[in-house]
Amino acid sequence: MMLPREKVLRDPVHNYIHVTHKVILDLINTPEFQRLRRVKQLGASSFTFHGAEHSRFTHSVGVYEITRQICDNFQRNYPTQTPGDGLWDDHERIVALCAALLHDLGHGPESHTFEHIFDTDHEAITQAILTSPETQINKVLKEVSPEFPEEVASVIGKTYPNPQVVQMISSQIDADRMDYLLRDAYNTGTKYGMFDLTRILRVMRPYKSGIAFQSDGMHAVEDYIVCRFQMYQQVYFHPVSRSMEVVLNHLLHRAKYLYEHGQMSASQTPTLLVPFLENNWDLTNYLKLDDGTLTTYFTLWRDHPDDILCDLASRFLDRRPFKSVRFTPETRYLIPDLTKLIEEAGFNPEYYTAINDSYDLPYDAYDPSSKEPKTQIELMEQDGTLEELSTVSPLVGAITGKSTGDERFFFPREMIHPDELQLFEPLYQKFQSYLHNDNLIDPQNQL
Amino acid sequence: MMLPREKVLRDPVHNYIHVTHKVILDLINTPEFQRLRRVKQLGASSFTFHGAEHSRFTHSVGVYEITRQICDNFQRNYPTQTPGDGLWDDHERIVALCAALLHDLGHGPESHTFEHIFDTDHEAITQAILTSPETQINKVLKEVSPEFPEEVASVIGKTYPNPQVVQMISSQIDADRMDYLLRDAYNTGTKYGMFDLTRILRVMRPYKSGIAFQSDGMHAVEDYIVCRFQMYQQVYFHPVSRSMEVVLNHLLHRAKYLYEHGQMSASQTPTLLVPFLENNWDLTNYLKLDDGTLTTYFTLWRDHPDDILCDLASRFLDRRPFKSVRFTPETRYLIPDLTKLIEEAGFNPEYYTAINDSYDLPYDAYDPSSKEPKTQIELMEQDGTLEELSTVSPLVGAITGKSTGDERFFFPREMIHPDELQLFEPLYQKFQSYLHNDNLIDPQNQL
Amino acid sequence: MMLPREKVLRDPVHNYIHVTHKVILDLINTPEFQRLRRVKQLGASSFTFHGAEHSRFTHSVGVYEITRQICDNFQRNYPTQTPGDGLWDDHERIVALCAALLHDLGHGPESHTFEHIFDTDHEAITQAILTSPETQINKVLKEVSPEFPEEVASVIGKTYPNPQVVQMISSQIDADRMDYLLRDAYNTGTKYGMFDLTRILRVMRPYKSGIAFQSDGMHAVEDYIVCRFQMYQQVYFHPVSRSMEVVLNHLLHRAKYLYEHGQMSASQTPTLLVPFLENNWDLTNYLKLDDGTLTTYFTLWRDHPDDILCDLASRFLDRRPFKSVRFTPETRYLIPDLTKLIEEAGFNPEYYTAINDSYDLPYDAYDPSSKEPKTQIELMEQDGTLEELSTVSPLVGAITGKSTGDERFFFPREMIHPDELQLFEPLYQKFQSYLHNDNLIDPQNQL
Amino acid sequence: MMLPREKVLRDPVHNYIHVTHKVILDLINTPEFQRLRRVKQLGASSFTFHGAEHSRFTHSVGVYEITRQICDNFQRNYPTQTPGDGLWDDHERIVALCAALLHDLGHGPESHTFEHIFDTDHEAITQAILTSPETQINKVLKEVSPEFPEEVASVIGKTYPNPQVVQMISSQIDADRMDYLLRDAYNTGTKYGMFDLTRILRVMRPYKSGIAFQSDGMHAVEDYIVCRFQMYQQVYFHPVSRSMEVVLNHLLHRAKYLYEHGQMSASQTPTLLVPFLENNWDLTNYLKLDDGTLTTYFTLWRDHPDDILCDLASRFLDRRPFKSVRFTPETRYLIPDLTKLIEEAGFNPEYYTAINDSYDLPYDAYDPSSKEPKTQIELMEQDGTLEELSTVSPLVGAITGKSTGDERFFFPREMIHPDELQLFEPLYQKFQSYLHNDNLIDPQNQL
Repeated sequence: MMLPREKVLRDPVHNYIHVTHKVILDLINTPEFQRLRRVKQLGASSFTFHGAEHSRFTHSVGVYEITRQICDNFQRNYPTQTPGDGLWDDHERIVALCAALLHDLGHGPESHTFEHIFDTDHEAITQAILTSPETQINKVLKEVSPEFPEEVASVIGKTYPNPQVVQMISSQIDADRMDYLLRDAYNTGTKYGMFDLTRILRVMRPYKSGIAFQSDGMHAVEDYIVCRFQMYQQVYFHPVSRSMEVVLNHLLHRAKYLYEHGQMSASQTPTLLVPFLENNWDLTNYLKLDDGTLTTYFTLWRDHPDDILCDLASRFLDRRPFKSVRFTPETRYLIPDLTKLIEEAGFNPEYYTAINDSYDLPYDAYDPSSKEPKTQIELMEQDGTLEELSTVSPLVGAITGKSTGDERFFFPREMIHPDELQLFEPLYQKFQSYLHNDNLIDPQNQL
Repeated sequence: MMLPREKVLRDPVHNYIHVTHKVILDLINTPEFQRLRRVKQLGASSFTFHGAEHSRFTHSVGVYEITRQICDNFQRNYPTQTPGDGLWDDHERIVALCAALLHDLGHGPESHTFEHIFDTDHEAITQAILTSPETQINKVLKEVSPEFPEEVASVIGKTYPNPQVVQMISSQIDADRMDYLLRDAYNTGTKYGMFDLTRILRVMRPYKSGIAFQSDGMHAVEDYIVCRFQMYQQVYFHPVSRSMEVVLNHLLHRAKYLYEHGQMSASQTPTLLVPFLENNWDLTNYLKLDDGTLTTYFTLWRDHPDDILCDLASRFLDRRPFKSVRFTPETRYLIPDLTKLIEEAGFNPEYYTAINDSYDLPYDAYDPSSKEPKTQIELMEQDGTLEELSTVSPLVGAITGKSTGDERFFFPREMIHPDELQLFEPLYQKFQSYLHNDNLIDPQNQL
Repeated sequence: MMLPREKVLRDPVHNYIHVTHKVILDLINTPEFQRLRRVKQLGASSFTFHGAEHSRFTHSVGVYEITRQICDNFQRNYPTQTPGDGLWDDHERIVALCAALLHDLGHGPESHTFEHIFDTDHEAITQAILTSPETQINKVLKEVSPEFPEEVASVIGKTYPNPQVVQMISSQIDADRMDYLLRDAYNTGTKYGMFDLTRILRVMRPYKSGIAFQSDGMHAVEDYIVCRFQMYQQVYFHPVSRSMEVVLNHLLHRAKYLYEHGQMSASQTPTLLVPFLENNWDLTNYLKLDDGTLTTYFTLWRDHPDDILCDLASRFLDRRPFKSVRFTPETRYLIPDLTKLIEEAGFNPEYYTAINDSYDLPYDAYDPSSKEPKTQIELMEQDGTLEELSTVSPLVGAITGKSTGDERFFFPREMIHPDELQLFEPLYQKFQSYLHNDNLIDPQNQL
Repeated sequence: MMLPREKVLRDPVHNYIHVTHKVILDLINTPEFQRLRRVKQLGASSFTFHGAEHSRFTHSVGVYEITRQICDNFQRNYPTQTPGDGLWDDHERIVALCAALLHDLGHGPESHTFEHIFDTDHEAITQAILTSPETQINKVLKEVSPEFPEEVASVIGKTYPNPQVVQMISSQIDADRMDYLLRDAYNTGTKYGMFDLTRILRVMRPYKSGIAFQSDGMHAVEDYIVCRFQMYQQVYFHPVSRSMEVVLNHLLHRAKYLYEHGQMSASQTPTLLVPFLENNWDLTNYLKLDDGTLTTYFTLWRDHPDDILCDLASRFLDRRPFKSVRFTPETRYLIPDLTKLIEEAGFNPEYYTAINDSYDLPYDAYDPSSKEPKTQIELMEQDGTLEELSTVSPLVGAITGKSTGDERFFFPREMIHPDELQLFEPLYQKFQSYLHNDNLIDPQNQL
C-alpha cells in the first residue's frame, strides 16, 4: 500500500530518503528498528576517527534508499516484458526494499567482539527477528502477506529465487557496501570512500543471472573497488581501532570469568547481560542490548575490586588503547620474548597482550573451489557478452584474490612510554629494541 | 610545552584538528573529556534529523580548532607591539585554547531536560571540573601553572580580564557557535548552517574592547547571522524534537515521583541516578552519567509495573513523539478544552500534555537595560571607527532584538490517529475540529 | 519523439543533465546553440572572481535540467485529472523544456555593454532566432509542429497562456535564476548562492494561476531569496567588475567615434563589427559575434595610433580596472571637482571617468502600479489558502521592495597610485583628500 | 618585498589564493600573465565535458597556491639548520613561487594542435618570455635581482641546482599535476581527480635529493596516482575530445595549404596568424594569440569558397566531432578498406580520416635506460630509509611502467548516420560491418 503522500527523511549522504510505501514507514517505526539508533555502525572506529559516530539506523535507511533508486532505474529502463526475459519485474520491489532496510536488524553493540565472547550470531538473529511472531517487525511484514517475513529472510539468507534481488542486497557491489563506504567516508572525514554512486547506478542493469554493469561504465566500477580497498586499508583496519577492540574483548572476557567464579556482587552484576553470561538468552533479552548497556556496566565496573576488570573498563571508557607492532611469519617467533617482558613488567599477558590480524579480500572473481564462492562483477558489452571485471581492469586485477592487511601484536602503552622513573630500566630498553619502523625485529640480528 | 611533532585528528568539518601543545593532548586524554564521546551534542534532535548523532566530543575539538585558527590569524596579522595597544598578545593563546576545548565539559545527557528535572547546572559543573583537585582535568591544567585552572574557568565565566579571549569563546559570533552551526548542518544534512568560515576568520580582528570585523567583511558576518537564524527555525526548534523532549521530561518526572513514593523496586532502581533522585550528588556521581546511562534505565523501566513510566519509556526509546499544534495568546484559552478531551480519552494530562515555547533572539545590539546585555557585533572601518552590525545590514536589522519561535501545545498522537474503532467517535472528531493548518482554532468561530 | 536511450551530459552543478527527447538533443547540436559556448555567462565578473569563466552554454543546459526536474515532480505528484483543475498537464513539458534551454540564445558578448553601445536587445534577438526561418533552431523546432517556434517564443515573451510554464522560466524564483545562482556560486567559489535546490523543488507545486510553494517549505524559499540578495551584493555588483565594464564601454564608444570619423584603417577595421558600427546589421551578422571576436579586435587596436583607443584596449585586455568611490545624493555635487582634477592630470574625462549605479530589487510583492509588476511568491497552506512570502518571512520582509546597491564614481588608478615622482604633487594629494573609507567626502567640511 | 597586507583571490578549488609578495602581485598584473585568461586549460575537452571551460590563468594561480602551501609546511616543520643538511632553505621560496606561477606562460591556444601545425614549442616560449628584455614579466622579475629571470627559467628547465625546488614544480607528483587534477575534476564534474591534497601536503618532506613522502602517508600518495590514472582514462583521453582535436588539426592544416597556395583572399586572411603561416614569427606575434583569435578566423572561414576549409571550420565551431573506432596492431590492416569506403562516399581522406593514439604512463619508477628518466616517488621510513612507491603499493605496482590508452581511427559521422536516403546503400552497410562493440573487426572472419 502506498502512502497518500511520500514522506522524506533528511539524510546527509543521500540528501533525502524517500518513503512511499506504508510498510516501510511502519517498519521504521517498530521498536526493533528504532533500537538501531543506539548501536554505532563502526564500533571502535570512532576512537580513531572521532566523527564516525553514526548508527546502524542511519546506515539502514541509506541501504534502503540506494535499493529504491536501483529499482527505479531498473523499472524505467529495463522493465520485464515476458516472464523469464531476465529483465526487472517490479513486483520484486517491495521484498527488495524490506530486505535492504532490515538486513542489519540483528546487530548488537560492538558486534564483532560481543559475538566472539558470547557466541551470538547477528545474521541468525536478524532472521529470527523477521520470522518470530513476537516481534513488531514480523507483525508489520505479515500485513503484506503471511509468507512475506520468510521471503524477506530468504533474501538476506541468499536463498530467494530471484538473483537480482539477492545481489542488490548482498554481492561484491551491493546497496549495503555502497552505503557504508559513502557514509563512513562522510562521517570519518576521509575521502577515500567517495566513489561516484550516480554513475554506478546508471550503468547497473538486470540480466538473467543477476546484476551486471554496462561495459562503458567500467571505470566507475573500478573506482568503487579501489575506494573499497582504500577504506579497508585506511579506516577499517586502523591499528588503534583494532587495539580498542582488543581491550574490549579482554574486558568482556574478564567479566565473564569473574561472573563464572562468583566474583560479581549484586550491585555490579550487569542485569541485562546475565542471560548471556549464563548462555541462556532469548530474543527479548537480545533486543534490550545497545551500546549504552555496555558502557553503563563498564562505568559500574570502574569501582569493582578486581584490578584487571577495573583497569580494562577504564582503558576502554577513557580511550587508552594498547600499542602494537606488525609482525610476519618470519618474526612471529619473537612474540614469546616480548610476552615475557610484559609479564615481568607486571601485566597479566592473558589480558594485556593479543595477536590480531586484519585481512580482507578487496575483490574476487568466482572461484568454485572456494568455501564461499563470491558473485563476481560482470561487465556487459553492447552485444550482451559478459566480461569479468578483473580481466579488463589492471587496477582491479592487481588486487583480485589477494587478501591484504597485516598481523599485529598488541601490548600496553606503558611498555614503551613508562613512567619517568622506569625510563632507563633495562626491561623497557630491551622491549623497545624489538621495535623498528613499526615492525617486530630481532635485536640480535641487526647490523 | 610544544609537542615534538604536531598531532592531527581527522575531522569531517575542519578536515584536520591540529594539536601542537602537549597540554591540549593531555586534556583530550582525560577521562572527563573522553566522557563527552558518550553525550550527544543535539540530544533529541537526532529523532528528527537522524544524521545528528555527533557527540559533544567532536564539537569540543572543533571549537578548539576554530580558536586555534583565530589565534594564528591574530598573531600573523595583528601582533601586539606595546602593551595596551589593543592588538593580540600571543601569550593568551594557551588559555584561549584550553577554554575553547573545555567549555562544554559539564554537559550531561540530555542537558536541557535533565537540568530541569534534577536542578543541575552544566556551567557551574564545568567550572567545578576545571577547579576541583580530584579531576584529571585539573591536574593537567595545573601543570601549566597553579592559577591556570582558575584562569581557564574565568574565561568560561566571562570574568577573564582580556575581552578578546572571552569573546573568542563566548559572544554572538564565537568559536562555539561557529563550530556548532557548521557541524550540526553537516550532520543533519541541512545546508542552512553552511556560512563561510574562512572569510569570517579573515575579517576578524582584535581591538581594545574585544573582537571586531573589518567592514568589508560585513556580508560574511551578515550571512552567519542569517544562517544561525535559519538553523534555529529549521533544526533546533523543530516541533518533533521538542515533542521528544516533552516525553523525556514527563518520563523523568514520573520516575522521580515513583522513587519518592517508594514505588521503585531494587531491580528497577537506577543506581547511577539515585544521588540525583535524592538531591544529594557530587562531581563523581555526575561524571558517571552519559546518554547510555539514561537509555539503559529506560530499557529496564519498560518492564516496570507503573503504566505511565512503562509507556513513556517506550515512547522515548521507540521514538513515538506527541503531536502538537501552534497557539497564540489569542487562542490559548482553548487549551483547557483540549486538555479535558484528552483526559476523557484516558490520558493523565500531567504526563500526556505539555505547553512548550521555543524562542530565540537571533542577534541583539547592546542593550544596557537587558538582564544579560550581549556583546554586540562591531564592524571596523578603514579609519578605525566602529559601526554596530544591525545599523548597516538590513537583513540583520530585520531580526535584531526580535525573538522568533512559536508556542505549542503537545498531546498524544492517538488523539488524531485513533484506532479504527474510535475513528468516528465524537470525542476525536471534536478534538480535531480545534486544529486547522497547524494552528489552534475555536471551532465555534469559523465561517 | 523520445530518444531510444537517454543521453546524459556531465555537469558540475547538477551532476548529470538528462536528455530524453530527440528535439532537445537536436537543439543542442545547432550552430546557434553551440555559439553560446563562446559567450561567458558573467562577462566582466571573471576579472574579479577568476573562476567565473563558465559560458552561457553551461547555464542554458542547467536551466533545462532544473525545468525537467520540475516537470517530473509536477507529473508525479500533481498530474491534471480534468482540464482546468489547475494541476499539471504533461503535454506542456516539451514547450517548457525548449523555452528553458533556449531562453538565452540571443545573448552576445558582454551583453550589457554591447547593447548599450550598439542598441541591440538580446530578448528580441532570442525571439528572432526562434522564429526566423533561416536558423537551424527554427528548423528543429518546426519538426515538432509548425506553430511550435512561436509557442516557445511566447513562453519567453511571457504571453504563453499557461502561467505555470511561463513562471517556470521567468518569475522571481524560476529555473533560470536558480541555475545561475548555483552555477555562479560554484564557479566563483563563493558560497552565498548555495541554496537548497532539492528542497525548493519538493515544495513547488502548480495551481491555477501558476506556481506556488507549500507553506511548510517557507524557509527554503526564504533562504533562496537571501542567497540571491547576497550574490547581488557580493558578486554581481562588485565594484571591480563594474569598473571593467566602464573600461569596456568607453573602449567601444571610442572605437565607434573613430570609425564614424574615418580614423580606422583597413587593417584595424573590425570586419565583424562593421554592420553594428554602421547600425545596419541582421541576424546572420549577430550570430557571428562571440567573446573572442571582441578581444581579437582589441588585440589589433593595441597598435592603433589613437592613444585613447590603444590605452583602453590594453586596460581591458590586461585587466587594469579604474578605481572608484561611493557617493550619495548629498555628496554628488563634489564630482565636478574630482573630474576637473582628473582632467588636469591629463585624462580626457569623457573616456576616463564614469558614474555607475548598481541597484537591484531582491524581491517584490505584486504592485499593480509598477511599470513591470512582478509575479509574487505565494505560499500555499494545507487548506489551499495563499500567503505572499514577505508577509510571513521577516527576513524577506526586510528587503522586499527596497532596491539595494550603490552609486560610484570611477576614475583612473593613477589618480591615487601615481608614479613616484608625482607622489607629492598637490594635485594628487588634493584628489585623495576627497576619499575617505571608500566614500566621497568634502575635504573642507571634515573635523 | 612583502605586501603591506596580504591580498587574496577567491578560488573555487583552494578557496583562497594568498598573495604576500609584491613580486607575485606584479607578475599577475602583467599583460603576458593576463593573456592566460584567454587560453582554455583543457582545450577540446570542453566539447566533451561542458564545464571544463577554465583557463590557464586559474590553473596557474592554483599551482602557485599549492607551492606556497608546500613552502609553508617545509618552513614550519623542516627548516634547514646547517647548509647541506637536506632540509628546507626558505630563501628558495621566492624562486619556487615565481616558477610555479609562470610555468605555463608560453601556452598558446589549443597548444597541442597548434604546435603540431606551426612547429612552436610552449616550453621554449615560456623560457623566452621569462628572459627576453622586452616582456613585462622580465622587467618585474629583474626587480628581484638581475639573475632572477634566468633562475626562474632554470627551475622550469629543471637545471636549477636545488632539486627540492625543481621537484615542487615538475616531478611525478608536483604542484602542477596536483592543481590540474583537482581543478579539472572540479570543473568537469567528474570525481575521479579528487584526491586528498591536505594529506599529501602533510606527508611531503624535503630531503637531500629532493622531495620524499613519509611512509605512513603511502595511501594518500597511492590514491593520487590512482586518481591521475583515472582522469587520463576517463577525461583526458576521451575519444570525443580527441576527435575534435583531429578536426582542428585538419582545419589548420587546410588553412596553411590554402595560404601557401595563394587561395586566401585579403578579407579571409588571418592577420594575426600570418607570421606563423609564413614561419617567420617572434614573441610579440605569439603573445597576441589566444583562443578567440582562432575562433574569430574560423568564423570568417565559414564563408570561404573552399569547401573543405568552410566545412571543417563549421564542424569545429558547431561541435560536430568525427566518430571513431578502436583498433589494435592485429586489426590495423583493415584501415585502408575503411579509408577507401570513406573516399567513395565523397570525403577527402587526407582531411576526413585520422589515426590517433593516446597513451600515458601513469607512473614510472626510475629507469636510467629511458629517454627521459623520471624522478620516482620515494617513501621515507621513520629511520630515514627510502622505498620506491611501486614496491610498496600493489595498486601502483599494477600500473607502473605500463602505458595505457588506445589507438583509434577517426571518420565522418555521416558514414554511420547517413541521410535517410542513403541508409540502405551497400556502401554504408559495408562500412558498418567493420565496427563491433567499439572495435574494428574483419567482417569476413566473424562467426
